[in-house]
Amino acid sequence: MDKTYISAGKLKGLMRITDESGRFRMLAIDQRGSLQKMLSNSSKREAGFPDLVIAKRIVTLILSPYFSATLMDPEYGIPESLKYLNKHSGLLVATEKSGTEASGYQDREKKTTLIEGWSVKKIKKLGADAAKLLLYYRPDGTSEIKNYQESIVKFLGEECKKEDIPFVLEPVTYPFKDDEVSQDSLEFVKRKPELVIQTAKEFSKEEYGVDLLKMEFPINLKYVKEFRQGYFDGKEREEIYSIKDAEDASYEITKTSRIPWVILSAGVDIEEFVVNVEIASRCGASGFLAGRAIWKDFTKYYPSENDMIEWLLTSGVSNYYKVFEASKKSTPFFEHKLFKSLANISVSGTSENWYKEY
Amino acid sequence: MDKTYISAGKLKGLMRITDESGRFRMLAIDQRGSLQKMLSNSSKREAGFPDLVIAKRIVTLILSPYFSATLMDPEYGIPESLKYLNKHSGLLVATEKSGTEASGYQDREKKTTLIEGWSVKKIKKLGADAAKLLLYYRPDGTSEIKNYQESIVKFLGEECKKEDIPFVLEPVTYPFKDDEVSQDSLEFVKRKPELVIQTAKEFSKEEYGVDLLKMEFPINLKYVKEFRQGYFDGKEREEIYSIKDAEDASYEITKTSRIPWVILSAGVDIEEFVVNVEIASRCGASGFLAGRAIWKDFTKYYPSENDMIEWLLTSGVSNYYKVFEASKKSTPFFEHKLFKSLANISVSGTSENWYKEY
Repeated sequence: MDKTYISAGKLKGLMRITDESGRFRMLAIDQRGSLQKMLSNSSKREAGFPDLVIAKRIVTLILSPYFSATLMDPEYGIPESLKYLNKHSGLLVATEKSGTEASGYQDREKKTTLIEGWSVKKIKKLGADAAKLLLYYRPDGTSEIKNYQESIVKFLGEECKKEDIPFVLEPVTYPFKDDEVSQDSLEFVKRKPELVIQTAKEFSKEEYGVDLLKMEFPINLKYVKEFRQGYFDGKEREEIYSIKDAEDASYEITKTSRIPWVILSAGVDIEEFVVNVEIASRCGASGFLAGRAIWKDFTKYYPSENDMIEWLLTSGVSNYYKVFEASKKSTPFFEHKLFKSLANISVSGTSENWYKEY
Repeated sequence: MDKTYISAGKLKGLMRITDESGRFRMLAIDQRGSLQKMLSNSSKREAGFPDLVIAKRIVTLILSPYFSATLMDPEYGIPESLKYLNKHSGLLVATEKSGTEASGYQDREKKTTLIEGWSVKKIKKLGADAAKLLLYYRPDGTSEIKNYQESIVKFLGEECKKEDIPFVLEPVTYPFKDDEVSQDSLEFVKRKPELVIQTAKEFSKEEYGVDLLKMEFPINLKYVKEFRQGYFDGKEREEIYSIKDAEDASYEITKTSRIPWVILSAGVDIEEFVVNVEIASRCGASGFLAGRAIWKDFTKYYPSENDMIEWLLTSGVSNYYKVFEASKKSTPFFEHKLFKSLANISVSGTSENWYKEY
């Protein structure tokens, strides 16, 4: 069989962020803006630097032992949480600034900014296993904004190649057209599957240098027959989709993407996320990178460190197991069509002179 | 308490190559010359590149799951063994060429050469957790050779600082004086404890940038009362040392070295190594980095891959457990006097601006 070639650092990184079965079962605790809001709400005061540092440290301490890897940010998470990252959990680090710059059509499009003073080189230097970029993206956006966003991905793709570290891209859709008043608007909900699929297709192209896509669930389950009567949030909605639609759209991501993908949690509740993970896993995803769905309610106990720890130790861990179970059918990265099997993977340039030419 | 500061990459690397208890329980499979000889002896023909690659791959496959880290070389081990390195085993990579250059006094002193075309930068790039240098050294050698050897250590120390990766130095004594005809000569055996202690003292100085010393056992147990009557190798010897001498010398290394140290196996049999590890661990060592003592007899089965695997699966694994047990009293790195406790360790430059200044 023809070998699939991968560089030494990318292979090492992928092996470090997957579990023994080759599946991505990853924790995201790189939230900044959203976490800051949650902590401020609970403590009835503006949460600042020390608050975020403490919250991230506690999540890392209690939950990282369960996950194959942990995604941190360098503003509040690193370096303080490093001591608490479980030895067996790989490390991904964010590159983007929290929040976006309003621009483009009616100022409703979004531009991404990289964290100033931070770099893939620094991510590699601190010993992390992968770099991550959250990118707001509309394949049907204005070409000005599309070009801008795509060029950031290409830039980071090059940096990750240079540093020989896996590149995890998280492209996220958002409403911006006149008829899309919110994430929940019917027009946006209807367009989303195609937006997600087209986005996966675009960024899995070799020219971007992405190694793993972190994708949204393409179908809003709150509009699916079985759940539309307020199953997740008590609010009734129209029936727009079926489970079959969710399966088809997930499978379409798998088919259209050249590279492996995982499902993200994007702030949905654990019940909904478990269904997302179950369907995505059955339809070709390689695992999950889950944040708020796992831990968000611990913020309600802020600032009591004890109560936060107790919530994470029980409900947080329990949420992990729910998602772990739901991801059992996911595709190990080495079985993805790109690699086919571990036996089929070879380190690029393998020869007696590898060490000279690397 | 005053904090001890350590850079993010060094801390991450140290955490990756220790086990959950903070102890170094490491496997060395970076042997080249010695392994080549063993394989050639067994197969009655000159073992070459493919033979070494296969042997290293098999040892990595079977044994790396047991060890907190695995030491490889980039000539035969990497990249071929990378796929077989257990996800939970950290990775150290050698920098020195196998063998040494005869030089100095009567051409009996030894000079180290780094692998041409290889570098700490490449070690970091491939995603490894530490760089290692084997250095032949006599603190009582000629200043020409001493300066030369010390300058290599300083060079690598600087490189490791630049790449922010732990530096493991393995300084090894050797006979070279007129009255030292071999490793086994009385004069050398008598001088060795002091040579080992002085060497540890020298290279633990901050100016060398070494993070962990891999040291020889200072006392040759074959000359100790309890073992001198051929206990290890059937050969009777004079009584020169007592167990107390071995304890004192080990403790002296601990006292004299500013940084943590582990014990190496240097080709002794497993029975002798277990006693080395037991004494060193009781007297302040932080674990072991063991090679041939663990696996050497598997080479007798070369070229039968099945037989090699079976030997490693049984005797190899059993040897690991013997050494593991013997190292139970070793000092976790974070409890070493340099750090005192994890609570006392802080990442250098920790502040709101860490990511900008790193």
